[in-house]
Amino acid sequence: MSKIKLGILGGGEDSLIGILHRVAANMFDQYEIVGGVFDAQHKKSLNFGEKLGLDTSRVYKDLDDLIEKESKLPDAEKIQVVSVLTPNFLHFPMAKQLLENGFNVICEKPLTTTYEEAKTLQKIQEKVKSIFAVTYTYTGYPMVRQMKSMIAEGAIGKIQKVDVQYYQGWINPLIHDKEKRAVTWRLDPEKSGISCCIGDIGTHAFNMAEYVTGMDIQKILADLNYLYEDNPMDIDGTVLLRFSDNLKGVLRASQIATGEENNFTVKIYGDKGALKWEQENPNYLYLLKEDQPLQVLKPGHSYNSDFSLEGTKLPPGHPEGIFDSMGNIYMGIANAINKADKFDGAYPKLYDGLRGMNFIEKTVASHKEGNVWVNMQD
Amino acid sequence: MSKIKLGILGGGEDSLIGILHRVAANMFDQYEIVGGVFDAQHKKSLNFGEKLGLDTSRVYKDLDDLIEKESKLPDAEKIQVVSVLTPNFLHFPMAKQLLENGFNVICEKPLTTTYEEAKTLQKIQEKVKSIFAVTYTYTGYPMVRQMKSMIAEGAIGKIQKVDVQYYQGWINPLIHDKEKRAVTWRLDPEKSGISCCIGDIGTHAFNMAEYVTGMDIQKILADLNYLYEDNPMDIDGTVLLRFSDNLKGVLRASQIATGEENNFTVKIYGDKGALKWEQENPNYLYLLKEDQPLQVLKPGHSYNSDFSLEGTKLPPGHPEGIFDSMGNIYMGIANAINKADKFDGAYPKLYDGLRGMNFIEKTVASHKEGNVWVNMQD
Amino acid sequence: MSKIKLGILGGGEDSLIGILHRVAANMFDQYEIVGGVFDAQHKKSLNFGEKLGLDTSRVYKDLDDLIEKESKLPDAEKIQVVSVLTPNFLHFPMAKQLLENGFNVICEKPLTTTYEEAKTLQKIQEKVKSIFAVTYTYTGYPMVRQMKSMIAEGAIGKIQKVDVQYYQGWINPLIHDKEKRAVTWRLDPEKSGISCCIGDIGTHAFNMAEYVTGMDIQKILADLNYLYEDNPMDIDGTVLLRFSDNLKGVLRASQIATGEENNFTVKIYGDKGALKWEQENPNYLYLLKEDQPLQVLKPGHSYNSDFSLEGTKLPPGHPEGIFDSMGNIYMGIANAINKADKFDGAYPKLYDGLRGMNFIEKTVASHKEGNVWVNMQD
Amino acid sequence: MSKIKLGILGGGEDSLIGILHRVAANMFDQYEIVGGVFDAQHKKSLNFGEKLGLDTSRVYKDLDDLIEKESKLPDAEKIQVVSVLTPNFLHFPMAKQLLENGFNVICEKPLTTTYEEAKTLQKIQEKVKSIFAVTYTYTGYPMVRQMKSMIAEGAIGKIQKVDVQYYQGWINPLIHDKEKRAVTWRLDPEKSGISCCIGDIGTHAFNMAEYVTGMDIQKILADLNYLYEDNPMDIDGTVLLRFSDNLKGVLRASQIATGEENNFTVKIYGDKGALKWEQENPNYLYLLKEDQPLQVLKPGHSYNSDFSLEGTKLPPGHPEGIFDSMGNIYMGIANAINKADKFDGAYPKLYDGLRGMNFIEKTVASHKEGNVWVNMQD
Repeated sequence: MSKIKLGILGGGEDSLIGILHRVAANMFDQYEIVGGVFDAQHKKSLNFGEKLGLDTSRVYKDLDDLIEKESKLPDAEKIQVVSVLTPNFLHFPMAKQLLENGFNVICEKPLTTTYEEAKTLQKIQEKVKSIFAVTYTYTGYPMVRQMKSMIAEGAIGKIQKVDVQYYQGWINPLIHDKEKRAVTWRLDPEKSGISCCIGDIGTHAFNMAEYVTGMDIQKILADLNYLYEDNPMDIDGTVLLRFSDNLKGVLRASQIATGEENNFTVKIYGDKGALKWEQENPNYLYLLKEDQPLQVLKPGHSYNSDFSLEGTKLPPGHPEGIFDSMGNIYMGIANAINKADKFDGAYPKLYDGLRGMNFIEKTVASHKEGNVWVNMQD
Repeated sequence: MSKIKLGILGGGEDSLIGILHRVAANMFDQYEIVGGVFDAQHKKSLNFGEKLGLDTSRVYKDLDDLIEKESKLPDAEKIQVVSVLTPNFLHFPMAKQLLENGFNVICEKPLTTTYEEAKTLQKIQEKVKSIFAVTYTYTGYPMVRQMKSMIAEGAIGKIQKVDVQYYQGWINPLIHDKEKRAVTWRLDPEKSGISCCIGDIGTHAFNMAEYVTGMDIQKILADLNYLYEDNPMDIDGTVLLRFSDNLKGVLRASQIATGEENNFTVKIYGDKGALKWEQENPNYLYLLKEDQPLQVLKPGHSYNSDFSLEGTKLPPGHPEGIFDSMGNIYMGIANAINKADKFDGAYPKLYDGLRGMNFIEKTVASHKEGNVWVNMQD
Repeated sequence: MSKIKLGILGGGEDSLIGILHRVAANMFDQYEIVGGVFDAQHKKSLNFGEKLGLDTSRVYKDLDDLIEKESKLPDAEKIQVVSVLTPNFLHFPMAKQLLENGFNVICEKPLTTTYEEAKTLQKIQEKVKSIFAVTYTYTGYPMVRQMKSMIAEGAIGKIQKVDVQYYQGWINPLIHDKEKRAVTWRLDPEKSGISCCIGDIGTHAFNMAEYVTGMDIQKILADLNYLYEDNPMDIDGTVLLRFSDNLKGVLRASQIATGEENNFTVKIYGDKGALKWEQENPNYLYLLKEDQPLQVLKPGHSYNSDFSLEGTKLPPGHPEGIFDSMGNIYMGIANAINKADKFDGAYPKLYDGLRGMNFIEKTVASHKEGNVWVNMQD
Repeated sequence: MSKIKLGILGGGEDSLIGILHRVAANMFDQYEIVGGVFDAQHKKSLNFGEKLGLDTSRVYKDLDDLIEKESKLPDAEKIQVVSVLTPNFLHFPMAKQLLENGFNVICEKPLTTTYEEAKTLQKIQEKVKSIFAVTYTYTGYPMVRQMKSMIAEGAIGKIQKVDVQYYQGWINPLIHDKEKRAVTWRLDPEKSGISCCIGDIGTHAFNMAEYVTGMDIQKILADLNYLYEDNPMDIDGTVLLRFSDNLKGVLRASQIATGEENNFTVKIYGDKGALKWEQENPNYLYLLKEDQPLQVLKPGHSYNSDFSLEGTKLPPGHPEGIFDSMGNIYMGIANAINKADKFDGAYPKLYDGLRGMNFIEKTVASHKEGNVWVNMQD
């Protein structure tokens, strides 16, 4: 089977997200990066393409150029899927154009800047039936997959409490300085939408809560924090979650949790046991059972599900990291493109991105209306 | 200096709380247990007194008997302080009677069964000026004391986020069984007041949040969980905390967090750093600072405050446990009785118990009124 | 059953070991401290006895005085067991005299200053049949007891590797300073015998290796470190252990492991699994099984052995510390005195102390003879 | 700068080591895999080359073929460096031939099967001056690099104790079964040289001890374990290390540490502090200082050395794994090939491989001669 032809929009020069996607794409020898638009400035884009060792005739001026020229290539040569790594506000128009021109799409999160745009993309995709992935990176970790498998198989029984946390501290040194907070793009609604903390990391936590439980959140009540009157963006928040009458949860997100790096933790309690996972130590999954020893599951062991084991490349004890997690998502997308899908949840889909946009808007609404319950169903 | 004469109400036979208080009282050679009423049945009480090696003439029939006979003894022999370890509903009448008869009081939490009763006790104490301690056990740990000291000294700057969690799972095997939940005293409002989860463990978390920050919570919004219609008691809840406009927090408590033992954690984030502590690993205090290595402080080191160091008996590396924490509280009470108070916060006071009762009532009110903000000021 | 009458030699004033033994003795309401010789200076001793609330007629001038006067008391009043907490060189003569006069003995480690002395004590005890405990404190932890129980029951199969470590750093700031090292008692062979590191902490590790496996070490080969020519005492060492032809082990001890506090760890590998325990986090016991999740056992759960559970006083999640460990040893001794022994290994015996002295002498011999194998059998 | 042309010998099909090297080579966009011999069977090799998307004219029949044809290509096209991932016994002849024909070499460990062969390679390399890397994978982790940097800068003062451990359990289920142990290649001296445990993992520990300290081990005394008479290979061992008169150390390695996965830990104690690192949790480096809080350093922070930071691609809190470690080694090699070397120790060299072979032979000799000291200098 020949490699999938991958195009990339954005991610040039020192872009971190660019490295992450390229390494992930290369991890299982399933993709070949053939071209793209790596930078708005064509010259920079060309230089970068050269650095990658690409045929620079496929380093395009812009997306129009890419679509026009790639569309003329024979099917066997043409870019099959495009990764959209551009600034957030470009996700929607680019993804839309790609879908409308028959490309499969891998889009960084957030999917769009508004829920409305996300619904528009959904309608298009329902028609064109392309593969559309939204890279909620953390869902690719083997032990997150194991968590999802175990919950689905009933390992912890009926879920009775969901607790997700995403704490970072990076905004702390910026938010208290009037000049800095005025020029931070994440704190500017023009550039990053109506929410900072919930939009950036709260959505990861929300996605994970739905991903591992396989359930939809019905209602939310949010309490956000906005420290300064001259800045309209939340930098911290707690959201009460309601899955159903008896299943409640709580989501906590903060960017002023000073000293926290990327402390994303997931705890799911059922009537037969519980599972816990922490992103900063991703190779441990904790299984708690009443009056039994705590169990710590690790990647690569035969006790894990096939879904978890799929992406583990080396024997137990060889730590996997975030690149491996994204690599697994790219593998899931490759399998889908090759019509060899094996596992439900192998990559996050457009629907996940849509839910994320819904969550952001409802959360801000709940807070602004006075910390009241808001329905996630329209 | 001779030992303080200590009387005990309750705590006989296999009572766990009885062992905890006796060991704590003995830890620093400051108390002598001289008598009490260990059991409602006088014969059992006498047997227990004998087992403790007491002069059984001071093992009394009941509290009236104790007060009558002890009051006749010369000051040098008389019981100076009484530990109230009886069932919750007896705390109020017993503490009241003791205060009114000139005894110092050590009362297990919850202080009373209603906020009203707590206010009554407060009024009496304001008149009689006795020492009155409420044993929020966890505040005695050296690293909790260190946390309080560091926050007071500004080690983490201005506080901008408070996050406390108290997760247990012990109600899980009881709550789902109709017969069991009907006969569990903790789930019976007659025996344990209007709240189970918040009343039992939520109050510890609330107390700790106020204890380490030195600040009062102003408003709360609660979302409790009641799993079955035939049981009126909460077994899980999340409470949004408001210290001030810009200082928000969240308290999570659960007794259906299956597999959790006594997972009480405290995280305080300031603009200059953060501190974290976990009850199950009480000898570690984590200090987080922006772009600096994580620091792990441990008991007994010279970098700790005098307040923290006071109760550490052995060199670093010799783990302290919950008995040591209660021992430190008893030492604080002994110092107060001996008019040798050294540290603010050396033992939890009647006011802490009062705040706890206030919190329980306001939390239930917030939930019942539809998850709305309720003021903690009357 | 009335309390056991306990006498104490040493341990007065601010003695840490004194506090540890008194709290341990009080923990289960089984002992009553009735007298002793707390200090070589009688006046200090009396003051201390008063502080403890003792009848000062039983605070004796010296051991002769104690033996003479206690021997005249009726059996029901007389001291039944004496804890020897005096400097190391006094352990032997005091323990000897106590044995010869019919007292049970609890002796701090090291049992004596030479192996010869230890053998003398053994011979006497074989005749008089008194209870004789040597307080290897760490063997009383519930999870050490659980480890011993599980190994005995075959939970990890046939043992194939033993690995014990005892690392501290406290000698580091002393050893490099010529004046300080000259005046540190632990570094003075007159005061602490022929070995510093092995004598003080290596023996704990040695004892633990034999205690949890239930096996005797046959031969050893030692490599010690002596940093300065002007000081004859080892401050670090590695000892190869030979239990049998196929069962090998290694013991590492150091007092120059800078920054280590009391890092005593025990790892036992069998052909069916392994067990690991760390003194600084004593409430966790790790069970490793091939291709199974790591299991973490904790005190107080029903899956633990009766032996482990005996000393756990509160429900799971209430951390126990070193005082609890010593408390359990005192309980074991009390049971033996009351002829109510329940568990093998409930307290460390004279034989354990004897093995410790044997180990110290053989280790130093192995090193001095050029790191050669030395037989532990005479 | 165009990409470095990389050839690969071995590593085809499902080879784990093949994936590891390819991902590592791709990680920083510095290499282009252009050809090689992926399998002894040419057909399989061709299929694999196709799967990788290579021009199959550069998938060669064997090494002779590769050398012949590549040598004829213009410099700009020719393979610049070859990764040798074949079975151990082929490392020597292949590396030799590559060196002699002017190629740079990346060789998996162990470098050769005898010390003699390693010395031969060294002599050749001294003449030809090619780049020659031996992939001791674990030295590439950012926190190992940070450890090396800090030790070099004196952060822990003068080293006074070295303690390395490499424990695995994977041989346990094989060694006790007569049939299985007879057919395990690692237990066959024909296939894997004179040592199993020391040769496979002990060498990693040895290399790490020399790598992070920057010092050579002078003498060793080894105690190996051979469980069955019908198998001549060690599966466990302890090695006493002597750096100098006053600097001693110990290396422990085992493959019968049942349940251990890849538990490789490094502890270096100096007179000013200590550093600890564990391969299974590679993103934490522990700094211990007397009477100061324990410090935990993590990748990506500005407090790390430039050498450590070089390979960290994402902000703190995004875990790196073993692929990242190997990626950093490949980056170091690329820099060397491009004559842009930045850091000492950026990749392990032929000398490291030579030391490893020396260590294996001396260790076995020490054991066989009766656990005696053997000099590592010839």
